[in-house]
Amino acid sequence: MGNSKKNMIIAQSGGPSSAINASIAGAIARGMASDKIDKVLGAVNGMQGFLNRQIINISEQMKSSEDFELLIHTPAQALGSSRYKIPKGDEEVFKEIVSILNDYNIGYFFYNGGNDSMDTVNRLADYIETCGLGIRAIGIPKTIDNDLFNTDHTPGFGSAARYVATSIAEVYLDTCVYPVPGLTIVEIMGRNAGWLTAASALARDSGIKAPHLIYLPEATFDPDEFVEEIRLLFEKQTHVLVAVSEGVRLADGSYLADTGAEADMFGHKTLGGVATTLESMIKEKLDIPKLKTRAIQLSTLQRSAAHCASLTDLQESYQCGYRAVEAAINGESDIMITINRLSDVPYLVRYDETKLEFVANKEKVVPSEWIYKNGTDVTEEMMTYLRPLVTGDTTELTQGGMPRFFRFDWDKIILPKDVK
Amino acid sequence: MGNSKKNMIIAQSGGPSSAINASIAGAIARGMASDKIDKVLGAVNGMQGFLNRQIINISEQMKSSEDFELLIHTPAQALGSSRYKIPKGDEEVFKEIVSILNDYNIGYFFYNGGNDSMDTVNRLADYIETCGLGIRAIGIPKTIDNDLFNTDHTPGFGSAARYVATSIAEVYLDTCVYPVPGLTIVEIMGRNAGWLTAASALARDSGIKAPHLIYLPEATFDPDEFVEEIRLLFEKQTHVLVAVSEGVRLADGSYLADTGAEADMFGHKTLGGVATTLESMIKEKLDIPKLKTRAIQLSTLQRSAAHCASLTDLQESYQCGYRAVEAAINGESDIMITINRLSDVPYLVRYDETKLEFVANKEKVVPSEWIYKNGTDVTEEMMTYLRPLVTGDTTELTQGGMPRFFRFDWDKIILPKDVK
Repeated sequence: MGNSKKNMIIAQSGGPSSAINASIAGAIARGMASDKIDKVLGAVNGMQGFLNRQIINISEQMKSSEDFELLIHTPAQALGSSRYKIPKGDEEVFKEIVSILNDYNIGYFFYNGGNDSMDTVNRLADYIETCGLGIRAIGIPKTIDNDLFNTDHTPGFGSAARYVATSIAEVYLDTCVYPVPGLTIVEIMGRNAGWLTAASALARDSGIKAPHLIYLPEATFDPDEFVEEIRLLFEKQTHVLVAVSEGVRLADGSYLADTGAEADMFGHKTLGGVATTLESMIKEKLDIPKLKTRAIQLSTLQRSAAHCASLTDLQESYQCGYRAVEAAINGESDIMITINRLSDVPYLVRYDETKLEFVANKEKVVPSEWIYKNGTDVTEEMMTYLRPLVTGDTTELTQGGMPRFFRFDWDKIILPKDVK
Repeated sequence: MGNSKKNMIIAQSGGPSSAINASIAGAIARGMASDKIDKVLGAVNGMQGFLNRQIINISEQMKSSEDFELLIHTPAQALGSSRYKIPKGDEEVFKEIVSILNDYNIGYFFYNGGNDSMDTVNRLADYIETCGLGIRAIGIPKTIDNDLFNTDHTPGFGSAARYVATSIAEVYLDTCVYPVPGLTIVEIMGRNAGWLTAASALARDSGIKAPHLIYLPEATFDPDEFVEEIRLLFEKQTHVLVAVSEGVRLADGSYLADTGAEADMFGHKTLGGVATTLESMIKEKLDIPKLKTRAIQLSTLQRSAAHCASLTDLQESYQCGYRAVEAAINGESDIMITINRLSDVPYLVRYDETKLEFVANKEKVVPSEWIYKNGTDVTEEMMTYLRPLVTGDTTELTQGGMPRFFRFDWDKIILPKDVK
């Protein structure tokens, strides 16, 4: 009998997060421990790199348990990402994918990403099924946006939420030191779903009142009402902090701040500048003597600040990767691993799975019942939902005060003959 | 014999830092332990609040060793700040200060701030000396700018440096995930001194090549040369990260990005927008296909991100406060505590003191020998200088994932009769 074992391959897609590498660490660990899996391979730069055969041998590059520890704590896709989306109806691409899978003797395909990525895996799994190839294709969830269906929350969200809330608490103390009116507007990522902006409310668990106003994309933004809210707040206090989603929209459905940039391959537009737009609005419409304003964009820090990761998030991300490989070994395909919450306090979850078609291309937004005060705040139910996700301090892996990272050598491309 | 013991008072000034409260924690601890000092008082909002008699009883408000631990880790002046500067030649103000000091039976005055604050203490100490009052006035250094003379470095700088370098390392990994040209420009605080921008170079200790260009205010900024540097970099690599000081200046001495805002009481102008200015410059002058650009302002996070503080910095800040009180008890006045470096490796320092007149209103900039590559990088000597300052991980003091802070009750104002 020859070697009947198949190789597995993993790739990553979409936007970075602080926890995304914990997921591949879990998948790699499970793959390397399995007697059904031969080698663990990785595709560099997602589906785009896979199609270019930018394939590396992870089994060779991960050398110690310390490598795993470092990988878990390294932010942003260690295998790179891509925004490439397989064009609708382009069966040639799927043929090419399958041909590459066969060339490299791959029996298990894992894709770590958000709802766009799940669509890719879904279509690939369908194609494989139609051709009766017996290759398993499974999705591992990831997105700081927390907008995937059929899962209580998504890996990456908790760490981003922790960073956002921690930064807001710290920035608010900074604002409060001066005895002059101060308005701080913090802009948070989230094009259509306001989960991450909602998480700014956790800053209040540090014993402060900020944010005083929280604007999510799910509630219509009314500029006049905003100006009035600010006016009323400064009547009774000196310092005001506003948390606002980059995706807030006016009554006509248009984005408050649209940079006019071209949409990307997924049809997503680059937003930004909401905080400065609101800052200008207040400067123009209100005359508050000596008012100091500050617009802060948390920018890519909110998705890459691994130094402020949530341990719960890292552990769950790891489990999602681990269980994806386990499911594939057990013969499953066309699914995504999910996290089901069993209880808030004590916080308990069970890992489960969902068919990919139920998550592909769909966005789970914040339910309107969790938004209140005329669209300027989130409810206690939201806080109860959020709290466990940011819990657990990670031990920093540093050397001389600087973070230590694990990085794959992307240039060590292998050929099919190397892994047959 | 009546109570011959005097009270001490401490106040904070200037811009916030992550380590400034470690200094007052040290001062308070030494004050409370001294048999020469009766009560430890605090003035809220610096000299401005002191003149308004916004005085609180710290001895009453600090209740446990846990309060001290929390205070050490709380960012931004726990006693508030002010930008108030005593007008030149206004002797009336000093008369008023002394009258308040006498009312509250204060024998020791401590001011925790930067070079402007040291000028205030210097002038106060001179006035007290002239009047023969026997009150001690001592300065405790603080500034993320690291621009004070006669001290190897300043409390607050190490933590800000650590945050800047850590964030840049993380943001760079984020940039690198996409296989398209990416230019990230990170703007760092520092009006005239480039120490903090120089600290961005420490990100390389995380095993990355970024920043690829570092622009300090000490070197003249030439826009054409900048564009050319960027062009050359993209000829050989896909991702470029630039660290730039908010204070970079053109050959004629004008700031590259001047918001046109009015200067504050100290004559400082609000700067900002350097990163976006450079971003626009590149978009306009270079045609790099598919180039993605991102301008990031680290904003007030760099001076308030206590969650990323340097333990070395917190410990030294504490010592500066502690030793200021000790010096006062020993009869000294009109001095500032300093840190003298004895050796880089192993890192050893000795605490010392300098006359206030040598630090007041002076700015120590980066020596030109430590800037090289035509003003686009810093030397290995600079790295050797910086490294020990960011070293040492702090234990996060969190509850439910959120930072815990110590906050004084600023409204608990006391009267002279309360402390006589």
